[in-house]
Amino acid sequence: MPAPVDFYFDFSSPYGYLAACVIDERMAAIGHEVRWKPYLLGAVYKETGGQPLVDIPMKGDYSRHDMLRSARRLGITFNWPSPFPFMSVAAVRAFYWLERDGHEKAKQLAKEVFRRSFAEGQDMSGAAAVTAAAADLGFDAEGLKAALQDQSVKDLARAKVGEAIARGVFGSPFFIVEGEPFWGNDRISDLEEWLRVGGW
Amino acid sequence: MPAPVDFYFDFSSPYGYLAACVIDERMAAIGHEVRWKPYLLGAVYKETGGQPLVDIPMKGDYSRHDMLRSARRLGITFNWPSPFPFMSVAAVRAFYWLERDGHEKAKQLAKEVFRRSFAEGQDMSGAAAVTAAAADLGFDAEGLKAALQDQSVKDLARAKVGEAIARGVFGSPFFIVEGEPFWGNDRISDLEEWLRVGGW
Repeated sequence: MPAPVDFYFDFSSPYGYLAACVIDERMAAIGHEVRWKPYLLGAVYKETGGQPLVDIPMKGDYSRHDMLRSARRLGITFNWPSPFPFMSVAAVRAFYWLERDGHEKAKQLAKEVFRRSFAEGQDMSGAAAVTAAAADLGFDAEGLKAALQDQSVKDLARAKVGEAIARGVFGSPFFIVEGEPFWGNDRISDLEEWLRVGGW
Repeated sequence: MPAPVDFYFDFSSPYGYLAACVIDERMAAIGHEVRWKPYLLGAVYKETGGQPLVDIPMKGDYSRHDMLRSARRLGITFNWPSPFPFMSVAAVRAFYWLERDGHEKAKQLAKEVFRRSFAEGQDMSGAAAVTAAAADLGFDAEGLKAALQDQSVKDLARAKVGEAIARGVFGSPFFIVEGEPFWGNDRISDLEEWLRVGGW
């Protein structure tokens, strides 16, 4: 069984969204499964003194331009959510709560949150928006609503974020396969080649 | 005549070095000339509050790893210069002084400075090291030595750095063609595709 690829991302990350649109298919094509692992870039910024890319002088303007250009090249619908960037802690908690019923279910929610955020431009920062997305997928919305207030779910999400940072994850998207890290949408071709030839 | 590609870089940038090893050939293959434009990332950091990539927590360790991995993938010899990062103002001044005799001559020096820095791991931060490289290329070393102390040459280099920043350049490598910016070694394939199809 080929090693699974861990896919770390922040729901508020445009490059994370673009990666989410392509990664399963590209990895499946070379026989690898993808384990989605949402986390919070804000927690990294606390460690590194960083800030959202789009807020950095010069880089911010360029990246907004590049995000749209990258989406167009991939043929992916892209609309800015408002507010942007946004706090995605509710989506992260919902993801890990759903994952207790299986990874695919959590992934379905993640894809729907990304679609609403970056294809439709919806505000997905709140618990209500995330719960509504889950309900539309036929998931237990009442259960989720309660879970989002549950301390054990909050702790689970916090632990997952801490685990990401402990593994050296600091960007979105960020991939790890058999200990090898790849940061950025533009490293997916390196990741593919690495898996294809067994590293270099 | 296809539009020339402006190639901005810092001599102390490993990704700039990797780009320098491939960019002329890749652009020539699609009919475009490359205008090399060394500048100083330090001047950008003053504007943006940034710092060298390798000094940033988490990102630093990853990028040292990725720089070596990227070099191996491209089959490019890579050895860390010491000190690293280094101040490359002497090389920038030498470049623009030589360019008054023609761009190719300046480019030859740039390639030699990169080769000595990142293939041989030499310290190319000082005026003496840059002058020695110029002498070995058969250029006027005495003239260069004097030029590096000349206020008009310092002013010329400073103006070139200011021009880069005024155009929104903030990284290394950074490419601009017909007003379209591409940041990073990993955007060269986008740049190629952009030129091939006329943008998207």
